[in-house]
Amino acid sequence: MVPTTAPNGAYTFLKEKEELATLVDKYDNFLFDCDGVLWSGTEALPGVVSVLQKLRKLGKRVLFVTNNASKSRRLLLERFESLGIQASQDEVFSSAYASALYLKDVLNFPTDRKVFVIGMGGLEEELDAVGVQHVGGTDGSDIAIQGTDFSPLLAEGVLDHSVGAVLCGIDTQLTYVKMAKAFKYITRPNATDDVQAGQTGGGCHFLCTNDDTTFPTKEGPWPGAGSVWAGIRDASKRTPTVIGKPNQPMIDTIFASRHFDKSRTVMVGDRLNTDIAFGRNGGVDTLLVLTGISTEADVQASDAPAVPTYIIQGLGALDVLSP
Amino acid sequence: MVPTTAPNGAYTFLKEKEELATLVDKYDNFLFDCDGVLWSGTEALPGVVSVLQKLRKLGKRVLFVTNNASKSRRLLLERFESLGIQASQDEVFSSAYASALYLKDVLNFPTDRKVFVIGMGGLEEELDAVGVQHVGGTDGSDIAIQGTDFSPLLAEGVLDHSVGAVLCGIDTQLTYVKMAKAFKYITRPNATDDVQAGQTGGGCHFLCTNDDTTFPTKEGPWPGAGSVWAGIRDASKRTPTVIGKPNQPMIDTIFASRHFDKSRTVMVGDRLNTDIAFGRNGGVDTLLVLTGISTEADVQASDAPAVPTYIIQGLGALDVLSP
Repeated sequence: MVPTTAPNGAYTFLKEKEELATLVDKYDNFLFDCDGVLWSGTEALPGVVSVLQKLRKLGKRVLFVTNNASKSRRLLLERFESLGIQASQDEVFSSAYASALYLKDVLNFPTDRKVFVIGMGGLEEELDAVGVQHVGGTDGSDIAIQGTDFSPLLAEGVLDHSVGAVLCGIDTQLTYVKMAKAFKYITRPNATDDVQAGQTGGGCHFLCTNDDTTFPTKEGPWPGAGSVWAGIRDASKRTPTVIGKPNQPMIDTIFASRHFDKSRTVMVGDRLNTDIAFGRNGGVDTLLVLTGISTEADVQASDAPAVPTYIIQGLGALDVLSP
Repeated sequence: MVPTTAPNGAYTFLKEKEELATLVDKYDNFLFDCDGVLWSGTEALPGVVSVLQKLRKLGKRVLFVTNNASKSRRLLLERFESLGIQASQDEVFSSAYASALYLKDVLNFPTDRKVFVIGMGGLEEELDAVGVQHVGGTDGSDIAIQGTDFSPLLAEGVLDHSVGAVLCGIDTQLTYVKMAKAFKYITRPNATDDVQAGQTGGGCHFLCTNDDTTFPTKEGPWPGAGSVWAGIRDASKRTPTVIGKPNQPMIDTIFASRHFDKSRTVMVGDRLNTDIAFGRNGGVDTLLVLTGISTEADVQASDAPAVPTYIIQGLGALDVLSP
């Protein structure tokens, strides 16, 4: 258990059975990134199903933490099921769910106000689940404009005066009109009802599920949530509150809703700039697996975005544990 | 004619008739920004029609330089006509027209290749006028995708292998699918035909008409060209070549196509960060009018983005000239 010194910190590469057992003893709560940790493409990584079963037998609590905001937790579970990985809806913590909790519990978003959504059905489903009202989103009956005549957008009833937040995630049905509406909501002058709702600055919160500029598919990368809201940010000159990894709101909502002891919690991931930075930002220990994006050389680089507490070869390395 | 010293340079505020006459004598070519210089809203500014007539009588050449890329020069002329301002198509230099010239004359864009357009009819019309082939744009029969299933975009024949440039301007019909296609064109690996066409880096040029993040309308600002392409830039991590003011390509295409003597040319505008910076970047003298956005206090500020050679109250100040 001798730490290795790297330019941006020290880490310990755990290989021996005894070291791995000590690691597991040290924590009650295991936060897992999914892609590159539990699975790769359409296959569960070796030993993962068995390791998760053993952790559960040892009484550990697990949470699957993902920036995916296109699907609800209910639909994300289908992926776990198809790979034979046991998981319940309570154990899935997505940036869509975290965004809904953030609105409800951190912002105390008024029940008589609405969120304008740029995003997909999964995001709407999570807002419904916590009782936050919303407009936009998958509503296909959107206003059409011709050329640069914007007057239809300003017709009575088109912009909803009860909107108090814009929430933006990946939306493969994004249109200019959605961008323009979000821009108008974010930049409108403070109205009386905004002030009453405790808004400052612009009249409207600006939240984004996550800032990944691309997201991976089996056909390669495509523009992600961070690219969907980039234009709204640049037009409005407002910096959004980004919920997902590696940002603070995601970890805040986890600990506000789960009451885990931070000193007994470890974040497990395959990417330094999201998962490991996320754990460090949130004040918990971190464990890098080498079955995904980042390598040990990345950890040792002088520009390493974050250095993990521990490295293991892969989650399957913990399969040496009894029982 | 005593210059005033400001933190970022010196300028001369011209008020006397003799000073104004000297100014006009000094230049053969007058480049004009339009909004805030020639007109404000739907009204021509005082004296503008008369001043332009006098400049023409004196044998001066005029050019109207605008970042508007939504309309062709032909349609932009209608605005001049409606305000009673004399202008010909040859005298209008828009960022759409400049983009077409840049492709044809600066990049020598191959005649057997195509430009993927995110933009409106005016941009397509300017490409047609210089004989550059294009796809996308106002083609309404675009591919639909469901959820995050991108496979329809990768079906044979959807992405056009002869695309060698993405050109992006304001597009009020922007969709995620257009963004995704642009992203794919820009980031595809170099193919043999790309190399033959002299491409380096990615397989495809990335051009934008202008970088205004908002554009003004009588109903207030809306997201502009710079906000339309922000997501493509962030997803691809490619920095586009931006054609319009205050960037160099616009002034390069003006002087490549007009053969004006730079020392006998002055740029007239109402904004320090676009018009005046544009003239200075291009190596011509500049004249600020105070009938639009920027004030003399802005010129004297320590963070002034550019200091003009001269200031006059408004273009109408030149109406004191004979004849």
